[in-house]
Amino acid sequence: MKIPHFIHVKEVGPRDGLQNEKQFISTDKKIEWINLLSSSGLSYIEVTSFVHQKWIPALADAMEVAKGIKRKEGVTYAALVPNRIGLERALEADMDEVSIFMSATETHNLKNINKSIDETFPILDEVIKDAIASGKKVRGYVSTVFGCPYEGAVPIERVKRIADRLFSMGIYELSLGDTIGIANPVQMNQVLMELLKSLPPTSIALHLHDTRGMSLANTLVGLSNGISTFDSSCGGLGGCPYAKGASGNIASEDFIYMLDAMGCETEIDFEKLLRASRYIQSLFSKSLPSHQLGLNVKGG
Amino acid sequence: MKIPHFIHVKEVGPRDGLQNEKQFISTDKKIEWINLLSSSGLSYIEVTSFVHQKWIPALADAMEVAKGIKRKEGVTYAALVPNRIGLERALEADMDEVSIFMSATETHNLKNINKSIDETFPILDEVIKDAIASGKKVRGYVSTVFGCPYEGAVPIERVKRIADRLFSMGIYELSLGDTIGIANPVQMNQVLMELLKSLPPTSIALHLHDTRGMSLANTLVGLSNGISTFDSSCGGLGGCPYAKGASGNIASEDFIYMLDAMGCETEIDFEKLLRASRYIQSLFSKSLPSHQLGLNVKGG
Repeated sequence: MKIPHFIHVKEVGPRDGLQNEKQFISTDKKIEWINLLSSSGLSYIEVTSFVHQKWIPALADAMEVAKGIKRKEGVTYAALVPNRIGLERALEADMDEVSIFMSATETHNLKNINKSIDETFPILDEVIKDAIASGKKVRGYVSTVFGCPYEGAVPIERVKRIADRLFSMGIYELSLGDTIGIANPVQMNQVLMELLKSLPPTSIALHLHDTRGMSLANTLVGLSNGISTFDSSCGGLGGCPYAKGASGNIASEDFIYMLDAMGCETEIDFEKLLRASRYIQSLFSKSLPSHQLGLNVKGG
Repeated sequence: MKIPHFIHVKEVGPRDGLQNEKQFISTDKKIEWINLLSSSGLSYIEVTSFVHQKWIPALADAMEVAKGIKRKEGVTYAALVPNRIGLERALEADMDEVSIFMSATETHNLKNINKSIDETFPILDEVIKDAIASGKKVRGYVSTVFGCPYEGAVPIERVKRIADRLFSMGIYELSLGDTIGIANPVQMNQVLMELLKSLPPTSIALHLHDTRGMSLANTLVGLSNGISTFDSSCGGLGGCPYAKGASGNIASEDFIYMLDAMGCETEIDFEKLLRASRYIQSLFSKSLPSHQLGLNVKGG
């Protein structure tokens, strides 16, 4: 089985995880959690989202969180930005890099950012150019790549068009979102083989949800295609507030357990990561979807 | 991606699923559940286990269940038997075929059937020969193939030795059990590649647990190696009473959803299977681990 040896895990729990939770986690607890995450050896943490708090009240304290966390050397602290205003706030908070996002389908894009796909491009173009001019790298997200809750199947051509457009604007990496966790391994293989005809595997990341239990199977297909960057969420928190049944990012500890077992390198300390997962689970009045959290029930 | 087109799904919920549950499901409800399972298009159902009721009280009504179910044409109704006495009961119940079982590790074998591995062979030899003499096919299970809760890693040579011995005794198929759900895809590939040097893929089945969320990833590796027979459990019920943390067979509906999506054929009606899962879930005072059950919450 030929798979990359070093795997880059991008932790999105503090942003994608929290944004779909109704319960507000207080600013100091968010900060403590992110500090636990960085102490586990994670080298990339998406800390928050600078969208208007009207849209994501769970992240209304984005600025306080971003300014309050302890910056560990070697860790990239990123934030999601929807537009120029968001970017300005991210720059004020001195984020190391920013992420922009859009959907592969019109309906999801409209519900998510209130614009058509073609109306979205110029806004992102401006954000990307300004971010780069300010010395920041920009990562792109495209959601509903493998299926849309409103439109169903998504033609690969649409994803290719968006990918080409965003890369030409200056993003360094595109994260392909399986927003509703509906991708299957055969489809994952087809989509990746098609995209990798024109893009290097190092430019592609996978952002998978475990809604139907297929996220690690799809991860394996990604690895077999040479993909070495994956998004995951501590505890398996996460989802999309605009897509019903989209809950549950792939749990960082389930993913890292599998990578460790397969002999891959992540430089992440599994036990320390589990400590961060136990911490965030303790703040919610429910069990999180992570398998490893369920297995490792003792405190720490 | 080269995988077999037709997949044989062997439903083990009524045996492996129920045997690890503390709650006793009444005989008439077990029968109703099994009848729902057979109506879904499943062609193989392991109905019960003819072990002494002292060991598995949840299946104390094995004979009543086996005799009470409606036999649908084309469905193979099987039962687990530990010894001659169990076989006699299975024959009395007119099971279509029987399964025998042992572990790949001494400690688990001892805890599970109170004998060493070498002491187990002659007992199974007698059961297999008698079953075949009575016109019944015999399936073999070997558990802890990918890791043991007591002994840790399991040398592949031990599995090969047991496989060779059981096939020479007359079993037609060996189901490799990942009893504690600890197999990883790289290991799965190594084990299968080694076993398939001397055995045809049609003689091997996989019996996976989703304890760590890796069961569908491991299934994919099995499919890629040409394996076309898999055990699964309606609702994701199941486990092993002698292995802590072993709960959760791969859920039949999660598995079949993925197979359908990948274009494989099983001849199983997903909606009807889900109905059987909803039924058994309604009898337990808890949510079962199946992802599809969680997604398809409406009754039916």
